[in-house]
Amino acid sequence: MRARSSIILLFFFMYLFMSCAFAGKKKHYKPCKHLVLYFHDIIYNGMNAENATAAIVGAPQGANLTKLADQFHFGNVVVFDDPITLDNNLHSKPVGRAQGQYIYDTKNTFTAWLGFTFVLNSTDYQGTLNFMGADPIMQKMRDISVVSGTGDFFMHRGVATIMTDAFEGEVYFRLRADINLYECW
Amino acid sequence: MRARSSIILLFFFMYLFMSCAFAGKKKHYKPCKHLVLYFHDIIYNGMNAENATAAIVGAPQGANLTKLADQFHFGNVVVFDDPITLDNNLHSKPVGRAQGQYIYDTKNTFTAWLGFTFVLNSTDYQGTLNFMGADPIMQKMRDISVVSGTGDFFMHRGVATIMTDAFEGEVYFRLRADINLYECW
Amino acid sequence: MRARSSIILLFFFMYLFMSCAFAGKKKHYKPCKHLVLYFHDIIYNGMNAENATAAIVGAPQGANLTKLADQFHFGNVVVFDDPITLDNNLHSKPVGRAQGQYIYDTKNTFTAWLGFTFVLNSTDYQGTLNFMGADPIMQKMRDISVVSGTGDFFMHRGVATIMTDAFEGEVYFRLRADINLYECW
Repeated sequence: MRARSSIILLFFFMYLFMSCAFAGKKKHYKPCKHLVLYFHDIIYNGMNAENATAAIVGAPQGANLTKLADQFHFGNVVVFDDPITLDNNLHSKPVGRAQGQYIYDTKNTFTAWLGFTFVLNSTDYQGTLNFMGADPIMQKMRDISVVSGTGDFFMHRGVATIMTDAFEGEVYFRLRADINLYECW
Repeated sequence: MRARSSIILLFFFMYLFMSCAFAGKKKHYKPCKHLVLYFHDIIYNGMNAENATAAIVGAPQGANLTKLADQFHFGNVVVFDDPITLDNNLHSKPVGRAQGQYIYDTKNTFTAWLGFTFVLNSTDYQGTLNFMGADPIMQKMRDISVVSGTGDFFMHRGVATIMTDAFEGEVYFRLRADINLYECW
Repeated sequence: MRARSSIILLFFFMYLFMSCAFAGKKKHYKPCKHLVLYFHDIIYNGMNAENATAAIVGAPQGANLTKLADQFHFGNVVVFDDPITLDNNLHSKPVGRAQGQYIYDTKNTFTAWLGFTFVLNSTDYQGTLNFMGADPIMQKMRDISVVSGTGDFFMHRGVATIMTDAFEGEVYFRLRADINLYECW
């Protein structure tokens, strides 16, 4: 009888402890929040001032700022303020803005370094998410980090899988961001 | 008697477990560290080389680097090394430097993207805090993320509420940063 | 006998609990992963297009983009795609690329602000690590933050101690990064 109660107690605490350990483990595998969002980038090319959402503001020697540089645009720094939508339609009602910079950073293929923020302002979400990472553009899916957030995303962290959803000449592209947050507060 | 000892033990472990769970919850609501700091930005305008703490280093086509660009400065990249003080006086003894960049990133209002580091070197704090986020400048208070730290702020994370504390022409501004750290190590 | 079994149980659960608490504490003191990597930066100077891994893409008024600016290069923005190696030999087989930007940000000494990503692609590691922080270049060792990661470094965080391992004129430098990850998932 004594032994049995001890064993029951043992299992009870093991359960408490395991549930704690599992809570930690679960984070690896299952996001606590998930969002799919699209953003739309129209680069200024000297003739589209009305519609442009992005501009080249840095370039290596010899390049100008209305045309992406040679050598896979190596060295081009682009500042952007892109509309974010819930679907892949540029003209859908925006739920926020993607603001920050991307930098083409390789001479022999297309890659970029990204530092930007999603400023979300919709009925679903009010807050910001900060992104950072390397974007090997030619790969179909690439992971970048969600390093932090504010508002509804206070202190959140996670990983975003981005895909080039459309690419038209050197003026317009659309990215799909599949955002998985694994640390929610 | 046997039952009672088991129950006491039960409560003891529940207490241990709950205190652990609560420690996690508390992080949501109460910062583990709090700092209020001011930093002072004097932009180079071609005539203030002595005093300037910041310089425009990127701009869209047609803009120059000694005058903030038209269209709400869209596309201006500014590098800075600003003194940090404990009060709102530019001439107070600095406790560190705010170093990094801000980028004006909207065409129809003032917003900026921030990526910078507080390098603190005072009797109170030795270490760095890294900031990242969108700054909707025209709002009185805006939250940006504190994504990490070193030294006294080893691995810390949190949120900083920034306010424009002064703004003089297009040369000087002062920001108040109310820093709340919710993850302290 | 009853007392003894309770005490044993007590110690057993204290052990479980303590090991959990220590796991948390241990993070302060002992990294869960450790890597030492070198990366090699060759700045474009107008004559080394073949070998260059970095280019000046932003500069203050009056500076050009094939020569680092006066005043401790204040205001120079450099984009890079540097090979990462396991030892200090530029010609060793790369295990990945360091991609991003550094910005010289002080007028009276050499300091830089860093935002970059290690894209690792070797038998040992597949994934990315994102770095951010202030680099007081003239100090022998300086700490910057590892703010997040993907792949094998999913959600990891930590601190990297960087050292200038070689510095040749204004064209080549090599950094040693001693990476300690304290949050592993």
